[in-house]
This record gives sequence, C-alpha cells and structure tokens, in this order.
Amino acid sequence: MTQVDDIAGESRPSALAPSVAAGSVHSIGEIGLQQFAPYLMNRIMGRYNATVRDALKARNLSTPQMRALAVLAVADGLSVNELAVYTVIEQSTMSRTLDAMAAKGWVRRVARDKDNRVRRIHITAAGRNLFDEMWPTMWGAFSSMFEGVSDREYATFLSVLHRMLINIRQHEF
Amino acid sequence: MTQVDDIAGESRPSALAPSVAAGSVHSIGEIGLQQFAPYLMNRIMGRYNATVRDALKARNLSTPQMRALAVLAVADGLSVNELAVYTVIEQSTMSRTLDAMAAKGWVRRVARDKDNRVRRIHITAAGRNLFDEMWPTMWGAFSSMFEGVSDREYATFLSVLHRMLINIRQHEF
Repeated sequence: MTQVDDIAGESRPSALAPSVAAGSVHSIGEIGLQQFAPYLMNRIMGRYNATVRDALKARNLSTPQMRALAVLAVADGLSVNELAVYTVIEQSTMSRTLDAMAAKGWVRRVARDKDNRVRRIHITAAGRNLFDEMWPTMWGAFSSMFEGVSDREYATFLSVLHRMLINIRQHEF
Repeated sequence: MTQVDDIAGESRPSALAPSVAAGSVHSIGEIGLQQFAPYLMNRIMGRYNATVRDALKARNLSTPQMRALAVLAVADGLSVNELAVYTVIEQSTMSRTLDAMAAKGWVRRVARDKDNRVRRIHITAAGRNLFDEMWPTMWGAFSSMFEGVSDREYATFLSVLHRMLINIRQHEF
C-alpha cells in the first residue's frame, strides 16, 4: 500500500509551519497529508500502541496497567484523577484498573484525609519489579521507532512536543 | 496539576536520542517521562482527538467520518482496507462508517471488478463541500497546537515523524 501513501504530498517542496502561515487557512490538498502532523502522529501512535498492547498481552498485562506502573515508577503517590490524566485513560477505567492492580499487590492506596475521599496510589515493590521486567520491551519499541534520529533532532522533536502540550492546555481549543 | 507534571524529568539536562543510546537500556527514571516521546505523543493526541471529536459532534459528524473525508479529499478511490489503515480506524468500524456516509450521499462505492469484491470509495461533491466547511475548524486546532513553532522546527519535526512511520513499518516490532 506504499504507493497510495506517496500520493499524499510526499513530493511537496517544503513543510510550512501552521503558526507561520497564521491568518490564512491552507487546504488539506495544499499541504498534503504527509505534511499534516496530527495525521502522522495518529498513524504512528496507533501502530505503536497496538504493538505495545500485543507485547503486554503475552504477559497478561493491559495497557492501562502498564501506563499506571510507568507513571507511578517516576511519580509515586498520585490521585486516581491525576493518574487518569497522565496515562490518557478514562477515570472510570483507571479506577477499575487500580482495583485489579491492588488485588494483585502491585499498588496500594493510602487515604490522605480522614474522609478517605482523596486516596493516593503507591507502587509496591512487586509492582516495581514487574515494571522493571517489562520496561526493556517498551524501551525496545521506543528505540526501534527512533532509529536513525540524531540527538539533536530528538531534542528538537521533544522541544516541539513540550510546546504542543502547553499550547493544548492553554487554548483548550 | 501542573506541579505533578514537572516532577517527571523537566529538570533533566538534555534529551538522549534512544537510537544513539542503542545497546544500553535506560530506565524510565533516568530519562524521565518528559523525555519519553511516546508518552508525550499519547498525551497530546488524546487531547487533540477529544477536542476534534467535540467540534465534530456539534455538527453531527463522527471522527471516522471526518477522517475518511480528509483522506478521500487528497486520495480519492481507495479501498475500505486502505481507508482503514490511513484513518487508523478498525476495518469493521470503517465499513459501517462508509455505509452511513453513502446513505447521506457523501461517498459512493464503485465496483472495480465483476465480482464486486474490491470496491473503490469516491468522495461526492456533497462530501467535499462538507469537508471544506469543517476543515477551517481542523486547521484552527492544528494551528493553535503548533503556535510558536518555526518553519525550520516544524520541518525537523515532520522529518522525524516520517522516519518513525518507516521504522514502525519495517520493524513491525
């Protein structure tokens, strides 16, 4: 199906940053799908997430579970709300996920106030061990995906991602 | 919740491209979530897709419908299979989506062979008008997301995305 991919703007001379072209709306035909970053990002993350899901399934782990472990591994003691935001998993799903994870002994919940309304989620030693076991697989997928990308390019790539996240938050468009 | 975001590696000195660090697996604690591009990309696209979905809902359009129109607007005459790949929508969902779109007169299906097994999907004038009407909204979300990103940075960003898509296809990791 590569030939179809190539028709959508691959031959265009150069990429125009949308903010530089502010004021004028360019058609999708003008910029081409291959220059439209959200399209490419959805394509890439769709494939990446499917691959990760398959790798985890072999170990009876779900994507929400792995994401919760990954976030807790660097930011322990979050609320369910915060975990839902950082893992991009709906809160109700995250809540059910944490039930299962607590039952398996991977996380524990600690009440923050007397009312037990806000509970903080902590990763256990067993949870951390499981994450450490799975991490090389995640790293492998990550590393393969960025093959041929230099330190300098990766730094620019990250810097753009950081600004995108800030822009999305500020605008709430 | 900004304070929680900041704990995950924001203060780290520099980003290390995973391919440059090949051979050695770095822990998520070492690189930090803010340096782990797939995490950032999922966060960004989760928010972007939710925003687009809300904007479309106001016009009684679904994300699969809008994605199909966008792809057909630049690459008319694809098969259902191909459309499913390019829109990152499951084939069964895309098939149902096209049923609804054909009923509304936005697309038409043309049999390619006598068996009617492979049908090509074409966008109609009504479909194109609808897409043209919706596109400024998509462009607005796209444009806001990349505010403050220069032409040069956007070109590097796209170039990395193109390599990621190729890497993912080649490795099928």
